[in-house]
Amino acid sequence: MAVIKAAILGFGTVGQGIYHILNEKREALREKLGVELEVAKILVRDTSNERIPGTQHLLTDNIDEVFAEKGMQVVFEAIVNEEPAFSYLKQAIENKCHVVTANKVMFAKRGLELQTLAKQNGVFVGYEATVAGGVPVIKTLKNILLVNDVSCIQGILNGTTNYMLTKMRKEGWSFEEALLEAQRLGYAEADPYNDISGQDAFKKLMVLSDLAFGEQPAWAEVEVIGVDTISAEDVKVATEQGMRYRHVAEVERQADGKIVGKVAPMLVDREHPLFPIDDVFNAVAIDTNYIGTLTVTGPGAGMYPTASVMVEDYAEIIGKRAGFVVTI
Amino acid sequence: MAVIKAAILGFGTVGQGIYHILNEKREALREKLGVELEVAKILVRDTSNERIPGTQHLLTDNIDEVFAEKGMQVVFEAIVNEEPAFSYLKQAIENKCHVVTANKVMFAKRGLELQTLAKQNGVFVGYEATVAGGVPVIKTLKNILLVNDVSCIQGILNGTTNYMLTKMRKEGWSFEEALLEAQRLGYAEADPYNDISGQDAFKKLMVLSDLAFGEQPAWAEVEVIGVDTISAEDVKVATEQGMRYRHVAEVERQADGKIVGKVAPMLVDREHPLFPIDDVFNAVAIDTNYIGTLTVTGPGAGMYPTASVMVEDYAEIIGKRAGFVVTI
Repeated sequence: MAVIKAAILGFGTVGQGIYHILNEKREALREKLGVELEVAKILVRDTSNERIPGTQHLLTDNIDEVFAEKGMQVVFEAIVNEEPAFSYLKQAIENKCHVVTANKVMFAKRGLELQTLAKQNGVFVGYEATVAGGVPVIKTLKNILLVNDVSCIQGILNGTTNYMLTKMRKEGWSFEEALLEAQRLGYAEADPYNDISGQDAFKKLMVLSDLAFGEQPAWAEVEVIGVDTISAEDVKVATEQGMRYRHVAEVERQADGKIVGKVAPMLVDREHPLFPIDDVFNAVAIDTNYIGTLTVTGPGAGMYPTASVMVEDYAEIIGKRAGFVVTI
Repeated sequence: MAVIKAAILGFGTVGQGIYHILNEKREALREKLGVELEVAKILVRDTSNERIPGTQHLLTDNIDEVFAEKGMQVVFEAIVNEEPAFSYLKQAIENKCHVVTANKVMFAKRGLELQTLAKQNGVFVGYEATVAGGVPVIKTLKNILLVNDVSCIQGILNGTTNYMLTKMRKEGWSFEEALLEAQRLGYAEADPYNDISGQDAFKKLMVLSDLAFGEQPAWAEVEVIGVDTISAEDVKVATEQGMRYRHVAEVERQADGKIVGKVAPMLVDREHPLFPIDDVFNAVAIDTNYIGTLTVTGPGAGMYPTASVMVEDYAEIIGKRAGFVVTI
């Protein structure tokens, strides 16, 4: 049986999740895809820190060693900032590797560029994990766009802040208490700026805009208001009125063709589809011409949801390669 | 450019929707897929009834004429009962045609058989439209199943009855008034038995069971309770208590491996994800091991939503055929 070698770049929560799933589903994936996947390299900053027992021999802190590995064909990337992630993936694609990324900061800025490069090199870019964690919004959108035009996308794209708003309402916690607990549970980064400022949701929104409209609004024109503008008292008043705060990201194509976006807290009543979306859940509503409004909802964060959609990206890529034998 | 010939079997609401979308999106589909699709035959019972101007020359009441057409390669089927639909599609597959069906009655009973036959003949079966109208639950499930195990599926699978329950609550209509209006709007069939008895939702549930678990529960063991057991007074009482009736279909794999199903009205409170799903909307929640619970929501009925997912099935099939050029 053919063996495909893969590398994991970045071995934090998501990187480790990929490793676990690939191990746990080894047999099933081999059976479904007809090929064996072997994790041959794991790129880390500190090779002395063996985070999963038995992986020491796979660790490297040198990206060149990854591509020097004979038979390397898939690169899973779970690093956080634009660089060096972009350069690594560019190098991967130039080495004819398929790439699967969870890096929204990089992808919001360089996603179209990577995809063009991938097309030129005959490889695929999987980026389901860049938006809404375990929610398959990218695949759903790609599928819809085969036939439909999309006019507007609206959603809760940040699980951390939705968790915080939920706890402020249900437990009466202050903003600070909710943030501390989100950090303790690993939802929020040590530096929570990107989550609470709305920048994280903004980056995901830009990835969706690229896909739905082929372009993004000018970043400077997108109003981005964080959840840090909402106090415990605001939440209390809203709850008494039967309303809930949601942090909503929205991008639409106006009648004049212009793409406009916005990220801001929104008060919703119980008739609103985002009303029951609590905890770390994300929800994305897509307005289309033929189908109407489609909504996908699910866990927006966490090791396994995010890692799972990355392995699904890999499986989809391999499925495409396996092709389809029929004469038309 | 290669031309692919297609037939539409059945030219009611959904069949006409397919014809309209294929015309409206002709350019876009040609550009995306690299092939031209031509509707070459339309199978109807009465060829003297030209439902869309300009289609008279395409109409036939003889299935053999469909397959006698040179270059016929895709069959869209939008007929309602098991036969003759199954025989037609079997014949189509044996003639190496891809088939795309919206026929849940047939597919609940013969779906696995058709898929096996298709595999043997190197063609594809698209059946997104058999379940939940415009909601892409089949594609979402297929994608999830590449990596995840599914334990339970729960949802509103019948748009007609959800519309009726919504109107009974919002307008204070009786069951009979709601049914009449559903019929007037074309949501309910002239014979509404399948909708209100729960048989329609049951058939869709069986299609989902086949896909998620590879098998169905014994049909006789599935409890199916219709919405006709709910009176206007029941709805009024529920509304006063802040609750809503939903008609819910559910199938799960028990700990002992047994697959069990149920279709019945359910009272849900405002914290329940199905609470805000009103009108003809469907919603399907899928419990998985890695991702957690994913929910997809959208219009469960109507000409364009259903026809749109059928054309998406076609586009997906052609996309697979076009293949993927890379050496691994």
